[in-house]
Order: sequence, then structure tokens, then C-alpha cells
Amino acid sequence: MSSTFNGNISFSVFGESHGPAIGVCIDNVPPGESIDMDKLMAFMARRAPKKDKTSTQRREKDMPQIMSGFLNGKTTGTPLCALIQNTDQHSNDYAALSRLARPGHADYTGALRYRGFNDVRGGGHFSGRLTAPLCFAGAVCAQILEKRGIYVGAHIQEIHGIKDKRLDPIHTTRDMIIDLHEKDFPTLDDAKGAGMKADIEKARMSQDSVGGIIECVAINVPAGIGSPIFDGLENTIAQLVFGIPAVKGLEFGAGFDVAKMLGSENNDEFYVDERGHVVTRTNNHGGILGGISSGMPITLRVAFKPTPSISQPQETVDYSALKNETLVIKGRHDPCVVPRAVPCVEAAVNIALLNHMLEYPNF
Amino acid sequence: MSSTFNGNISFSVFGESHGPAIGVCIDNVPPGESIDMDKLMAFMARRAPKKDKTSTQRREKDMPQIMSGFLNGKTTGTPLCALIQNTDQHSNDYAALSRLARPGHADYTGALRYRGFNDVRGGGHFSGRLTAPLCFAGAVCAQILEKRGIYVGAHIQEIHGIKDKRLDPIHTTRDMIIDLHEKDFPTLDDAKGAGMKADIEKARMSQDSVGGIIECVAINVPAGIGSPIFDGLENTIAQLVFGIPAVKGLEFGAGFDVAKMLGSENNDEFYVDERGHVVTRTNNHGGILGGISSGMPITLRVAFKPTPSISQPQETVDYSALKNETLVIKGRHDPCVVPRAVPCVEAAVNIALLNHMLEYPNF
Amino acid sequence: MSSTFNGNISFSVFGESHGPAIGVCIDNVPPGESIDMDKLMAFMARRAPKKDKTSTQRREKDMPQIMSGFLNGKTTGTPLCALIQNTDQHSNDYAALSRLARPGHADYTGALRYRGFNDVRGGGHFSGRLTAPLCFAGAVCAQILEKRGIYVGAHIQEIHGIKDKRLDPIHTTRDMIIDLHEKDFPTLDDAKGAGMKADIEKARMSQDSVGGIIECVAINVPAGIGSPIFDGLENTIAQLVFGIPAVKGLEFGAGFDVAKMLGSENNDEFYVDERGHVVTRTNNHGGILGGISSGMPITLRVAFKPTPSISQPQETVDYSALKNETLVIKGRHDPCVVPRAVPCVEAAVNIALLNHMLEYPNF
Amino acid sequence: MSSTFNGNISFSVFGESHGPAIGVCIDNVPPGESIDMDKLMAFMARRAPKKDKTSTQRREKDMPQIMSGFLNGKTTGTPLCALIQNTDQHSNDYAALSRLARPGHADYTGALRYRGFNDVRGGGHFSGRLTAPLCFAGAVCAQILEKRGIYVGAHIQEIHGIKDKRLDPIHTTRDMIIDLHEKDFPTLDDAKGAGMKADIEKARMSQDSVGGIIECVAINVPAGIGSPIFDGLENTIAQLVFGIPAVKGLEFGAGFDVAKMLGSENNDEFYVDERGHVVTRTNNHGGILGGISSGMPITLRVAFKPTPSISQPQETVDYSALKNETLVIKGRHDPCVVPRAVPCVEAAVNIALLNHMLEYPNF
Repeated sequence: MSSTFNGNISFSVFGESHGPAIGVCIDNVPPGESIDMDKLMAFMARRAPKKDKTSTQRREKDMPQIMSGFLNGKTTGTPLCALIQNTDQHSNDYAALSRLARPGHADYTGALRYRGFNDVRGGGHFSGRLTAPLCFAGAVCAQILEKRGIYVGAHIQEIHGIKDKRLDPIHTTRDMIIDLHEKDFPTLDDAKGAGMKADIEKARMSQDSVGGIIECVAINVPAGIGSPIFDGLENTIAQLVFGIPAVKGLEFGAGFDVAKMLGSENNDEFYVDERGHVVTRTNNHGGILGGISSGMPITLRVAFKPTPSISQPQETVDYSALKNETLVIKGRHDPCVVPRAVPCVEAAVNIALLNHMLEYPNF
Repeated sequence: MSSTFNGNISFSVFGESHGPAIGVCIDNVPPGESIDMDKLMAFMARRAPKKDKTSTQRREKDMPQIMSGFLNGKTTGTPLCALIQNTDQHSNDYAALSRLARPGHADYTGALRYRGFNDVRGGGHFSGRLTAPLCFAGAVCAQILEKRGIYVGAHIQEIHGIKDKRLDPIHTTRDMIIDLHEKDFPTLDDAKGAGMKADIEKARMSQDSVGGIIECVAINVPAGIGSPIFDGLENTIAQLVFGIPAVKGLEFGAGFDVAKMLGSENNDEFYVDERGHVVTRTNNHGGILGGISSGMPITLRVAFKPTPSISQPQETVDYSALKNETLVIKGRHDPCVVPRAVPCVEAAVNIALLNHMLEYPNF
Repeated sequence: MSSTFNGNISFSVFGESHGPAIGVCIDNVPPGESIDMDKLMAFMARRAPKKDKTSTQRREKDMPQIMSGFLNGKTTGTPLCALIQNTDQHSNDYAALSRLARPGHADYTGALRYRGFNDVRGGGHFSGRLTAPLCFAGAVCAQILEKRGIYVGAHIQEIHGIKDKRLDPIHTTRDMIIDLHEKDFPTLDDAKGAGMKADIEKARMSQDSVGGIIECVAINVPAGIGSPIFDGLENTIAQLVFGIPAVKGLEFGAGFDVAKMLGSENNDEFYVDERGHVVTRTNNHGGILGGISSGMPITLRVAFKPTPSISQPQETVDYSALKNETLVIKGRHDPCVVPRAVPCVEAAVNIALLNHMLEYPNF
Repeated sequence: MSSTFNGNISFSVFGESHGPAIGVCIDNVPPGESIDMDKLMAFMARRAPKKDKTSTQRREKDMPQIMSGFLNGKTTGTPLCALIQNTDQHSNDYAALSRLARPGHADYTGALRYRGFNDVRGGGHFSGRLTAPLCFAGAVCAQILEKRGIYVGAHIQEIHGIKDKRLDPIHTTRDMIIDLHEKDFPTLDDAKGAGMKADIEKARMSQDSVGGIIECVAINVPAGIGSPIFDGLENTIAQLVFGIPAVKGLEFGAGFDVAKMLGSENNDEFYVDERGHVVTRTNNHGGILGGISSGMPITLRVAFKPTPSISQPQETVDYSALKNETLVIKGRHDPCVVPRAVPCVEAAVNIALLNHMLEYPNF
């Protein structure tokens, strides 16, 4: 199943970049949850191409039309299907791609997987555009979680080696998260953000692209959510996060830095705080122990490769004719996917959290 | 489902560290595959405690008894269940743990998840011992894949900051992988390995523990295996790898380093090689594009935290009484889980690969 | 998951009778399969309301719009989503139903399941209209199977006690099946069909409705398809067939008649026929043994209850006020669902067969 | 997945009739449920061969050994694995079967499905013996449900045309169900039961076998359990019931009789009873509307074919040599599977009910 997530919530993402529409069908959304469409659109707008030069010049409203499962402003509990029409395709830009594999792209592997029958225009089903339905699903889940006090926020933590501060893994608040949601280019340190934007613009001017890292936090997740071994929070977040194009790495809490640590440094000692809650003094475990939430903030970092579509000439192959060729990619592409991927990472985490919270009584 | 992986192959891992037995039930193994039990035992022996001081002093034969799905040396195609008896438990060592949360462990989160009814002796179902059935399943899959020329190998790439060389992401061969399989402490550079072992011993002597990184490669995976979005090779490997206790991070190909790269550096240019195969000159993509294998070696790195069970006194809580306590952990624990986790990572990758290869005709 | 089937093919049916649209998202359709849209529309037309008086007077074109997964007349292999706009709703007819439970309907149980938030107009997600997307999925599968020589056909075998002949469980041919597909009121004996139609009209005139039985056959299914215990052909067909509203019973081969038989009567003796094929002399097993196809025609019968929506006054409850009421149902309803359910049963069987055939190499 | 049920509860049945052991691994059993082992053994004893002549002379204790997920008399919430050793095999009886297809059996279809590698001794994985682990799982679920007041009972409603009374679909009580559980040959009318037993003995003496029908009821299931379309109570019960060997038909409520009824006869009118509960005056719907429980007793009937293993000479094929042969089956076989299948049907219904009840808050 390429495009289906099956859990307590199931959803299927469908569509091709240059087909009639893309969308998502979500099953097992709880009934009676009010969805504020303005808020939902604000979530999705964060994924839409930026008005500045950090992203593709393709412009689409990405207005989801809800086809089912929603009545009088509330979820009905039956499958929630949303459609997003494709409107601003320039399919001609992609004519040559049906033969030439773009380096770093799924053109070649997709052609093998689908025996040459898949739609290659604009990347087809592999397009980053398919993160719009992911964001729709994530935005719905976020609203359901926020009503229970759970907030998920993310920021651009690194672009091409320029690093933002790290999120506070203990004291991040709802207000800090909402502040990030409202930023056009979400960093904690705006001066660093300005440097990143300049670097992205520089890459764009060089017909190049840059990669980066998104850091994400979820606060107020109740302790005890998730399951051991293959169905923990980390497993589910991982399955969803690796569904976002260009992701090459994922770490929780102290992540890869644990390789340099002693147990006595890494272990997060527990104590009972003034409210009588069990908490930890540090949060190297990233809020998850044995696949299950500890009640501490859940923290993760996701590495995104530089946009593979760059307009410099590149050596590649014509995989039909099996001969070497030089490719010059046309079309409109983001010089960096990271800014637009921020809500996508949040979406994946929101879906994973709601998925596991539905296992529990009294949700 | 805590402990069940559902794909083209499904399997459930069951058991507690101090219960009668642990095991695994694997469904949809192809029929007629011969399994060499000596080879399987050799795979599992790599996970067993080492005879030297890098690992726990608990000694168990970990002899899997096959209960079903296997006849005359071959798989029958019906569910394959294997049982591993528990024999060398020291349950008394764990008496106090039923109240005191070990820092870095799932004692507290497990108690919440299972409302206090789970078996806490030896970590119960959260024990690293549950990787033995994972290795059984992985060893079966490895034998099936090796007959098709596909080999998966891993090495200890870092321990507490001491780094081994990296695997060659282009030219790693079957012989190099078999060589790693046969090493007691698998590193590429044995001098580095000696340093790592000394460091582990030093941690042990200090009643401490260390973390590390395992690097893994799979060669000769046919191009075109896997699916986009939520059911790609990365998603499946991630779901399984995060099922190994102590894993905090996972990256493919250039991994987190992509955050420092330009697209023109990261993109792997394609060319047609002398055999007429489509290959890439570099392998930053780690053999996977759009969730689908490219035919290049699949490469990944997995970060493991230091063993949380250290015998230094640690501050923690009695989570029944909700009061602060000091804990001194007894029992036998690995000062570093990384050496024993090497076959576990290989197991996860073997299972993920076979899972996706079963989707294809003429497997 | 209310409305999702997960197998080698997965699909989700979505929509409400009086919402903007209904539809289906199908994942894992094989790539490169040509779909003849005229033929597909002909399949769906058989489910549409009949022009005579045996069915509801609601008239909708039921024109599926394919949103994804289809290019140049062929499936791409990526998710295939089809949308059917709702156009001819008379929502006012249903105003009273939001309080009064229609006997034999899911109004009351649906209100409990969805805590009162589901759309009750026209039955909402419980509407028989949701069989249109099922038929779309079935029609796609049928075309894929027919190219491999596999044909599924069904007829009305009983209406309100009036019985058609039974299908020949050994010698039914492709031509006989196509003949049934082309009939407006598919029976083997047209005189019996005329009697059934008269009986339906009589029920309609009495503000009543009638039930019946559909018999279905699938020919040329290769032997060896399906799996034992919970994933056999019978299990999958059953899961799908009980997804058609109004179904109350399902039997395979000799079905309930086996309760009256001796083993020596019921056992179907095998022999090698003139082509060298292993076949049986009788077909009480209905083409399935141990969940797996035997190569003989697959035969099944499905019982449908009389349409519960009848316009006679009926005693019922107002389940909000918890008091007894008398209900007179308005709106347009089929006096018998059986004629329109014939392609629905075929759809379920086609989907189940393709689902299991995808397990096999060289499909 | 041949032998795995995946729902809110998942379980895998494993083993072969003549292998070392059979068993079941159940995932997602709620934690903290006490299991009375005597009661569990009593449930399983009802499936064991009867001491009289109505069943096979094979004698096994069928003592399940719990390997995991159970501590201090209570479920832990982690996977519950139980093993049943095989002890009384007469494998020699089956030597010839490896070539000759027993009519009515899965020998031929199993050989194709598993390409000749499956264990054919005693029917292997297709053996009725695999209903022992099903009964184990069902008995666990039954105890969990009974603590919530939900009882499932079944009786032999027909053997070879001899019919017992039908269960009262409105007024069946817990005591009536417990009474059935305690009967060695559960019928409502013992005189009819005596006639059935005589008929079974007569078939046995004629080297023949007989089929029959089991009727089952579940009482006190809360209204609102289950989901529409593909995940309703009927779908799940059907998927599980068709996992019991020899089942050829399944109906709910009025079942196939609906084909003879008018809507005005079949519709079950609602009323508010003296307790203020919404109930129906009749129960043709069998307690399920739209896949969801109505609060009325859930009723179903299951048709079982005569045991295919009869010792009369039968015409069949040697499917290796593809030639016609005469077969005389040796070994010990039930002249009728129906008496031993009574707890199997109950098991399937108990599992299906618990599976759906776990979806609901406050379970």
C-alpha cells in the first residue's frame, strides 16, 4: 500500500501533481469534533509557496473541498475526504522528464516500480505537492489535540549549516508554539532566520538548492500513550515523517548525540515536581521511553536534503534508451523545501499522536 | 498492536524477560525456502551476550525451538512460530523495580500503559531480550535473501565518540559483509575496535555505560522495490529499527549531513555503467529514492543510547507512592548495547527488504 | 475503520447520501491495466435506479470522475480515486428522521455509534448509495480479471419466494455470464423474472417491499488462490458482501443444504479430465476448499432483506425524547433492493478475487 | 496473511496437526483482566473429542501453556501466547495422503497454495485441530466479556435434517446460555438431541458422516458497537466464522428467510420498554443494524458440511501423477464436526465482540 497509513486513524493520500486533483480520505476521525476552517486554512497556508523567493513560483490556492464526513462545522465520524483541485500546472515543462532521470528524484525508481505507467508530470504521485493532503489531515488532528491542550510546533533549526537555537526540551510553552505557527519563516532567533533566507536566495541565484533540519516539539501529551516494540510513538512518527519527500534522517531527544554520551550523562533522572507530577530533570529521552510518552515534551529533529531539482546542467541517463545524457531541468522549484516542510513535520506528529491517543479510554 | 508488524510479512514478538519463554510468530513466509539451522544459530549467537566483558554476564543458550511452519529443513509457507525458553533469570534482582522507575527505562511509562499489570522483572516485555525473536525472524529472512544474492551487513561505527571508518557506499561486497558477520566485535578498523572495547570496559569499571552508532548496508537489492509515501523502504526500516530498544536516531545515505549540503553536492548523478546498468556516481541517497530502491547499496546509520541500567546511585521516583527516592540498580547489564545490537539492525533491514520484495512477481 | 478494506488491494468508501459527493480511493491497483470507461459505466448503470417501477424514482447519473491513478486510459499503479457528485437530493424528505428511528434501518444504531453527529439525510453514510463507489471499485477489478479470462456473474435467484433456476455450478460459461450482465432484470428463466417483477410492483402498490436472494458465480479462477483460516476466499468475500446494506445471509456451494447431507453425498470426488486438469464431478464445495480456490466455479448465494423504508405507518421511537411514535416514511425508495444489488455482489466478488490473485507471482 | 486476524485485537493461529505444537499469539488484550484457568479449560474441553462415539477417537489433553502476557492470574496487556503440545499423533495413517486428494478436503488446494511444501499429516495447518487455539482466544475474550455481563451461547440446531428448537431471539437469558455451556451435547430439546446422536452413530456405522447447523446468540451487547460497511459486527463475525473448517453458510437474524418476507413482516418495530430502553418487538435483524449492535440479542446460524474424511472408498486423483485413483481414508475422524464446533462458533463471536468493544471509551 503505497499511500495508506493504517492505524487507529487510517488515511490514504491520493493524486498526482498534474492530475485533476489531489486529496486525502481519513477514516476513524472521532465524531463531533468542531473544525475551524479558517484555522485549517492557516495551517495549510504555511505549506503553500511563500510569497518571497525562498520557494517555487507555482501559485495555487490549495483550497480543500470537504466531500464527506463533515456537517454543521463538526466531524461526523464517517470518512472525511478532502479534495484539492490542481489549477496551475505547467505540464509542458516536464515533457523531457519522461525519459531523463532527475538526479535525487524518484523518476527512475518510480518508472521501475510502476513499470512506466505512472504520471511523471511534476513528479506525479511523488511530488512534494502530496504533502498538501498530509497537512490537511494533520491540521484536522491538530485542532482535535489542541482542544485537549496538546500543541505541536516546529522551527527551522538549520539551513545549509546555519543553525538556529534549539527548542527548550523542558519549558517550551503553548505561547512559544503559537508564536512559531505565526511566523512566516519560523526560527527562534530571527537574525539566524535572516541569514538562512539570504543563504537560500544565494543558492537560488546559483541555480542551486540547500538542505536543512526541522526541530519539532509536542507539549502536554499525557504520559502513557503508545506501545512497545513496533507500535510506539517513535515507530509511528517515523513511518509518517519518512512519508515526507526529501527526509533523510530522524532523531528523538538527544538523537545521534547519544553516541558520545555516558549513561550517567544521558539518563534523565525522575522526580516528583511541586504539582505532584512525575517529571525528569533533563529530556534526552525526548519524551518517549519504550515507545510510550513520559509526559515530558516530545522532541524530534528531521533532516531534509537540498531540493534535487536544480537548473544547473546535470549528468544523468535516459532510462528508456539506457544511454547517458545531460539534463537541464526547467519548471518552478523551491531552492529549499525546509520552510514549507515545517507544517508537514507538525502534521505527521499530530497524526501520530492522535492515532495513539485514540487507543485510550475517555479520549 | 504493540508487538506486531503487519506487512506482506507479518510477525508478532511475544514474551517477557522472566516469563517461561519468548518467541515470534511469522506469517506469510514463502514456502519451500530451506533454512540452515547452524547458520541461523550463528546469526543469533551474534546477539547473545559476548564472552568478554563488553556485555551482561547473563548466559542463555537462546536456542530457538521451531513449533510450526517448518518441515524437512524447509519452510512450509504456513505460520512459522519459534520459541526461546528463558532459563537464567535472577528475578530477585528486580524486586525493588516494581516501585522505582529506572531512569532511561520504560518502567514508569510501561506501568502507565499497562495500568500496573505488566511484568516488570528484567524489563518484562520491554527487555532487550525481545530482540532475540527479532533476530530469529531476521535470520530467516536473511537466508531467503542471500539465496537471491542480497546481503545485509553492519558494523559498530562509533562508541562514545570513538569512530570506525565508514562503509564504502558504492563498492561494499558480499565478502566484506561476510567478514563483518564473522567478527566478534565488528568494526572495519580493528585498532578502532580495540579502542572502543577499552572504552566500554572503562565505562563498566566506572559503573557507567556508553552509547554508539551502527552503520548498515544492504547490497544487490534490485532496483524498483518499495512504494512511495507511507510504504517505502525507509518507512518500513524505520518502523522496525525503532522497535529495537535504545534507538534514538536513524538516517539513510548522507543522513543529517544533507543539512550542510548544496543540491549540486548532494544529488547523485546517474550513468549507465559498463554492464549497461543504471547506477549513480555517489550514493548520498543511500540506495532509496521516493521510498523505492535504486539498485545502489542501501545505507543507514542507527544511534543507540548508553544502556540506561547503570549501577551508580540515581535519583528517581517511587511512582506508586509518588515520592522521590534514590535507586541503586542491581542485576547484570550490558555496559554497551551496541555490539549485541549489530545483528538486530541487520535483522530489521532483512525483514523490511523481504517484506517489500514479496510484492513483486517472480520473487 | 468503518469503511476501509485492507488487503493486497485496499480501498476506502466515503461520502453521505446528501453530501457533496461520494467516492472511493483504491490503493495498490496494478499499473498498466487499461480501463474501458464505457464498459465501466455499463457496470455502474446496472446499479443505477431502473427506469421501470421496481426501483426508487431518484435519478442520478452516477458519473464517476477519476481524480488520480489513471492516465492515457490505463491505471498508473498509484491510488485511484473516483468521485461521484450527488445531484438529486430531496433533503427535506428526511427532516423528521433525525429523531425517529426507521425500523430495519441504522438510524438508531448510527446515532449511538456516532454520538448523534452523523448525517442522517438519506441514510447518510449508511445509504445504499454507497454501493456506487463499491461498484466502481468492482468494475475496475472486473476488467482486470476479465483480461485474464475470469468472469463473475450473478442473477436474481429468488424474490419473495418466487424462485429462478439455479446456475449450473459446473458448466456456466463466459457467454452465459455476459448474457446475465446484459439483462435489465437478470434471471435465468425470464418467465420467473416477469413473475418477480409483478410481485415487486404489487409490493410497491401496497406500500410494502420484498426481499430476495442473489446467486453469483466466478469462472476460470485458477486453482490455488487464497489462504487458510482467516484469509481465505470465503473470509474476504464475506467481509465485502456483508458491506452491502440489507445482506442477512451468505452461503457457498451447497450452503445451508449441507446440514441435510451425508458426507458421501456432499463430498465432491476429484478426477482428471480430458485436458489433464484436476476437477470435481459435483461442486458442493462451491469452488473453495480450505479457503483456497479449487479451479471449479466459485458459487455463492446472498440473502437480502426487504427494503426497510416502506411508507406504511410503523410504530417506532423518537430516540432523542425516548418516547414511542408513529412514523410515516416519505422519500423515494426501492420496493426491492435485489435487482440493483446484483452488480454489487459481483463487485464484492471481483474485488475479493483480485485481492487474492495479487498474492501470486506472474499475476 | 493466512492465519492472522488484525483488528483492535490481533491474533495469529499457528501450528500443524502433527508438528510439535499448535498455538496462538494474541496482541492487544486489555491489561488487568483476570483469567480463571479452570473456566478456560472447561471452554476448551467442550471442543475436545467427546468421550462417546460422536467424535474422533484421537485423545489429547489440549492443555494450553501460557508463554507470555499473563502474570499472577491476570493479563498483563502484552502479547498473550499460548501453546498446546501435540501428543497423540498417528502420522503413519496419513502417508498415502501426500499424493491422494481427499474429496472435500484442502489437500489438493493446499498443495497448490504452498507449492507442495506444506505438512499434510493430519491435515497440517488445515486441520480442525487449529480450532483449539481459536477456542483458547475465544475463551479469554469470553471471560472478559462475561465480567461486563455479555454472554455468548450456542446450540446444535440441526443435524442431518433433525432440527432442534430455535433460540428465543428476544428473551434468551444468561442462565439459559450457561445451561447450554454445561451440556455435553447442547440442544434446547434433549429428545431431539438424542435423535441427532443416534443419527450420527448411524452415519459412523455406515462409514459416513453428517452435517448440521449451529445457532448462536450473544446477549447484553451494548447498543452502538461496530461500524458501517466493511467493519461491522457482521463483517468481523463472518471473517472469523469462515475461519472454522467446514463452514459453508452464515446468516444473521431471520437470515435466508428474509427472501420470503415483506418489509412489513421483516421490519422490527422499535418501542421504549418499561426500563426506558429502546428495544424491538421482533428480532429479525438479529441485533445488528448497519453493522452496529442495536442492544437486542445478536443471533446467527452457521452451516457445517459433513466431515469430508469418510472411510468409504472414494474416487479421487493422485495430484502429483495426475491420474485417477481410489482412496480409502484411514485415521480417526469425527463422524460429525458439529458438536465440537459449538464452542468454536462461540469463540469467533466472543472475539468479534471484544474486538469491537475495544473501540469504545470506558470499556
